Amino acid sequence: MELPSKLLENAVNEIAQLPGIGKRTALRLALHLLKQPNTQTETLVTSLAKLRSEIQYCSNCHNIADATRCEICNNTTREASVICVVEDVRDVMAIENTGLFKGHYHVLGGKINPMEGVGPSQLNINTLVEKVKSGAVTEIIFALSSTMEGDTTNFYIYKQIQECNIITSTIARGIAIGDELEYADEVTLGRSLIHRIPFEKAIKQV
Amino acid sequence: MELPSKLLENAVNEIAQLPGIGKRTALRLALHLLKQPNTQTETLVTSLAKLRSEIQYCSNCHNIADATRCEICNNTTREASVICVVEDVRDVMAIENTGLFKGHYHVLGGKINPMEGVGPSQLNINTLVEKVKSGAVTEIIFALSSTMEGDTTNFYIYKQIQECNIITSTIARGIAIGDELEYADEVTLGRSLIHRIPFEKAIKQV
Repeated sequence: MELPSKLLENAVNEIAQLPGIGKRTALRLALHLLKQPNTQTETLVTSLAKLRSEIQYCSNCHNIADATRCEICNNTTREASVICVVEDVRDVMAIENTGLFKGHYHVLGGKINPMEGVGPSQLNINTLVEKVKSGAVTEIIFALSSTMEGDTTNFYIYKQIQECNIITSTIARGIAIGDELEYADEVTLGRSLIHRIPFEKAIKQV
Repeated sequence: MELPSKLLENAVNEIAQLPGIGKRTALRLALHLLKQPNTQTETLVTSLAKLRSEIQYCSNCHNIADATRCEICNNTTREASVICVVEDVRDVMAIENTGLFKGHYHVLGGKINPMEGVGPSQLNINTLVEKVKSGAVTEIIFALSSTMEGDTTNFYIYKQIQECNIITSTIARGIAIGDELEYADEVTLGRSLIHRIPFEKAIKQV
C-alpha cells in the first residue's frame, strides 16, 4: 500500500503499532481525523501525552492513580488488612464493578511467564511480601486468571508468605452463572464437584 | 465502567471517539501505551499532530499531499487530459494499485448525500467543472461507488459538463473476477448481460 504523503505514512505506521490495529484500520483512523475539525486531533494528542507523562502508580497497591495514593487506598472505610491480589488495572475495575469487595488491592502488573521473559522480579511481588511480613495483613485473596501462569504466580507468592500467620484463599473456580452443564469442560465441572458448597450457604448468597 | 484516574478517563474518552473503537478497546489501547516506553506515545502524538497541522491537499486534484501539488499531478509522464473522478483518497490508492491508469485524478471528497446533509457545494465539484470548461480535459472517467449516492453524483457532474465536447465513461459494473454466477445478484448479472464485451476484446485483456 503506497500512501500519497509522508506525513500520512508516518501517522499510519505509528497508529498501526497499537495492538489489534492493522495498516488498513490505521489509515481509516488517520483519514477520519483529517476530516474532523483540528480541535479533535488536538484534544486527542494532549490527552494521550498527559496520560503518559503525568500518570502515577499508587505507592501502596500499584494501581493507576492521579496522586501518589489511589482512591481505593485513600478510602478509610475500606479494610486495609484484606488484600486482593490481581494481575492488572482492568481486574481491579472488574472486581470493583461487582461491589462485593471492600478491602484493598495489590496490582502485580502481570503474571510470571518464562515463555515471554516475565520473571518474578519484573512484577510487584516484593512489596506485597514486605506488606505481609510487616504484620499489617490478615488475609490475602488471589484473584488471578485461571491459567498455568496465574497458578504459577499464585504458588510463587504463597511460598514466600507461607510462614506468616494469615488467611490465604483463591477465588472460586466453577460453573459460571447462567451456564449449561452440558457445555462445561470436564476440568471445570470436576473441580466444581470437589469444591461443592453447602446448600444452605449457597442459597444465602443468591 | 469507573476508571481509577481522570487522566486515563480523558484519554479513553478521546480514543473512543474514533470510528469503530468503543470504550473497552480504548481502555485496552491506553493501558497498552502505558506499558510501552514513553517514546512510543511521544512519536505517536507528534506524528498525529504533524499530520493534522501540516497536511496539504493538492491544488489540482484535491488528493492528500505533502506539497501544494501531489506526486501524481507533478508526474509529467502521466496524461493530464484524462481525469478519473473518485470519492476519496483511498480510491486513488486502490486504482493506483492496479497500475492500469496513467491519467490524473480528481478527488471529490465524498458523494452527494442529502440524507447526511452533503450537498454539491461541500464537494470539490466546481473545480472539476472549471477544469473541463477550460478545455484542458479530453476524457472523464467516473469511478464512484455503485450506490444511489454515487450514481446521483455522477449524474450531477455529467449534467454540468454535458455541453463540453469530451468523452465521458464510468467504470464497468459486472461479475467480479473469480465470482460464481449462482451467487451474483440479479441486478449485477442483468447489467453484465446488457453491457457484454466482444469476446475478442475480452481475451486480449486477460
